[in-house]
Amino acid sequence: MTALAPSNRLRRTWWTDAVEAAGVSAFTVYNKTLLPVVFESPSEDCRHLKSAVQVWDVACERQIRIEGPDATKLMQRLTPRDLDRIKPGKCAYVPICDVNGGMLNDPVALQPFPGVWWISLADSDLALWVEGVAMGAGYDVSVSEPDVQILAVQGPWAGDLAAEVFGEDTRDIPFFGFKWLPFENGKVLVARSGYSKQGGFEIYVTDPALATPLWDTLMSKGQPFDIRAGCPSGPERIEGGMLSYGNDMTRADTPFEAGLGRYVQRFDCIGGAALRAHVASRKIVAVELEGAPPVCDREWPLMDGDVQAGRIRSAAWSDEFQCGVAIGMVGMNWEPGDRLTCVTQDGKIAATIQERFWK
Amino acid sequence: MTALAPSNRLRRTWWTDAVEAAGVSAFTVYNKTLLPVVFESPSEDCRHLKSAVQVWDVACERQIRIEGPDATKLMQRLTPRDLDRIKPGKCAYVPICDVNGGMLNDPVALQPFPGVWWISLADSDLALWVEGVAMGAGYDVSVSEPDVQILAVQGPWAGDLAAEVFGEDTRDIPFFGFKWLPFENGKVLVARSGYSKQGGFEIYVTDPALATPLWDTLMSKGQPFDIRAGCPSGPERIEGGMLSYGNDMTRADTPFEAGLGRYVQRFDCIGGAALRAHVASRKIVAVELEGAPPVCDREWPLMDGDVQAGRIRSAAWSDEFQCGVAIGMVGMNWEPGDRLTCVTQDGKIAATIQERFWK
Repeated sequence: MTALAPSNRLRRTWWTDAVEAAGVSAFTVYNKTLLPVVFESPSEDCRHLKSAVQVWDVACERQIRIEGPDATKLMQRLTPRDLDRIKPGKCAYVPICDVNGGMLNDPVALQPFPGVWWISLADSDLALWVEGVAMGAGYDVSVSEPDVQILAVQGPWAGDLAAEVFGEDTRDIPFFGFKWLPFENGKVLVARSGYSKQGGFEIYVTDPALATPLWDTLMSKGQPFDIRAGCPSGPERIEGGMLSYGNDMTRADTPFEAGLGRYVQRFDCIGGAALRAHVASRKIVAVELEGAPPVCDREWPLMDGDVQAGRIRSAAWSDEFQCGVAIGMVGMNWEPGDRLTCVTQDGKIAATIQERFWK
Repeated sequence: MTALAPSNRLRRTWWTDAVEAAGVSAFTVYNKTLLPVVFESPSEDCRHLKSAVQVWDVACERQIRIEGPDATKLMQRLTPRDLDRIKPGKCAYVPICDVNGGMLNDPVALQPFPGVWWISLADSDLALWVEGVAMGAGYDVSVSEPDVQILAVQGPWAGDLAAEVFGEDTRDIPFFGFKWLPFENGKVLVARSGYSKQGGFEIYVTDPALATPLWDTLMSKGQPFDIRAGCPSGPERIEGGMLSYGNDMTRADTPFEAGLGRYVQRFDCIGGAALRAHVASRKIVAVELEGAPPVCDREWPLMDGDVQAGRIRSAAWSDEFQCGVAIGMVGMNWEPGDRLTCVTQDGKIAATIQERFWK
């Protein structure tokens, strides 16, 4: 792999020093922020994630704060998700669409305090969209980036570790629920969420003074659970069918095409008319690849003979399932069991559409 | 340096294969696109840029296209630069501000065809802002990302090389002027611009089929001028006082604070009221550092005894001037000749504010 040249333009986080000390071997850049993506190796990082517990620096999930009299009105204008159905204390996965229904981001939103929204971003400067809309249309809101960074705890032992660190109360937090919990002389917001299928929490830290103590406490109390610094795992998230914005779906795709149709619940939002009229022409599918794929750093066409059936934009070798695992987008005519050919930069690989993701 | 993990989220360009074949040793990520930043070493790349000619893959300068009846009206709403003063066939450096006058981007805009604007972006998803404003306020425009990628030719021999490749007409293109010129069986837009003080051109390519022939032709006809694949040079651009958005200035700074006050020519734009009322409290300055600085990957406070005078966010060693060169932002009270202390991650360095940049 080529090196990443350091720059002030690429933000270090409250935990980058700790991540480096823990031996990170590759970063990506996500929301102009350093996101660790490899420590030992993708395979070993994945195996460990599935068997122990990891602490992830996901401060790259940068936040937008919306507050003011029109905050909720603006939020509902931004997403086809019906926010009335989101109970207090719950996170909401909220696709954000442009006027054509194209996905601008797929963040998680929550109300940390009554009347205030935080939006935890995938990789795009969505704040510019939110502010542009708010300003252009005259919503009475204030939009800003709060000083909040997220540390995730993921893995099968995450629940026990969280109970050790934040108390038994954490066991009552339902999936996608959150609570403010005391930590040292302050509070952190603990949400049962995260970008893995192993279970765990995302801890929203608002006080930089708590950042290093939090990392150190987790690392120390996590020792019995074989805790390590880790990161989102390519193989694990593909096995679980967890989409990556900018990879598996982009602005060229609607929520329907991205398999997120269940979150399109109202049409009185930006892009609503387009979504109401929309007939999806493609769909997200799990694709098994024969053998270990090369690095998926460009789009791979999925060919059915001479016809392009679709594309793959995320792929990895799965040690657990002993095959290549991939997320594809194919035309509506293709079905599970269909055998296709994936054209990579290193040659062709046999590909089979699966009934469902592996996890 | 840590590796950059490849991902579809980080775009390869029409020239990434060529850049890799030419031996790139480090990338950065800019507008979610790979930008080469080191080939041999920062020093050697800089020396070569100043003595020969280089081809740069700057496709990371992603484009926004604005067209439609209100295109120019919207453009003027976006920038305090007076667009009436921009003659046909000229590029315009157009700071784009938020309602508070904070810089959202500092792109170069031009009209490739009558009634159509292209905005060549620094590192932020400005399209989301432009579209949000346009939609919120009901401008009759279409905003999109055109399939345009830029290859730059920079260095003292760039003029001779461009004349060889595109004809003697290129010699008549004034600074920041552009022309559509024939290349093979198509046309490219050739602008006399670029992110160095060595002179040269940026070639806007609209037909992917011309991308590789253009690279190959430049490399082949450039042989007498010792052409190499290159990239923007840290030392060279700092010596020349060329600012980097996200480094030397951010959204927290107004054009006045960023030394771009001369581009604030009208106040009937977004942020105009704030800019009219604005009294700058800080300014961009050249700062000489004693000795070679470490990698400037975080903000360095500039201390005047116990008082923080400002900050540095770009720094490098200059072989030509045999000192550390840096771009600082300091309070209005500090003046050329003032001796300060720069606090880096590796310790303190003596720093002196300069009268002007080195080039």
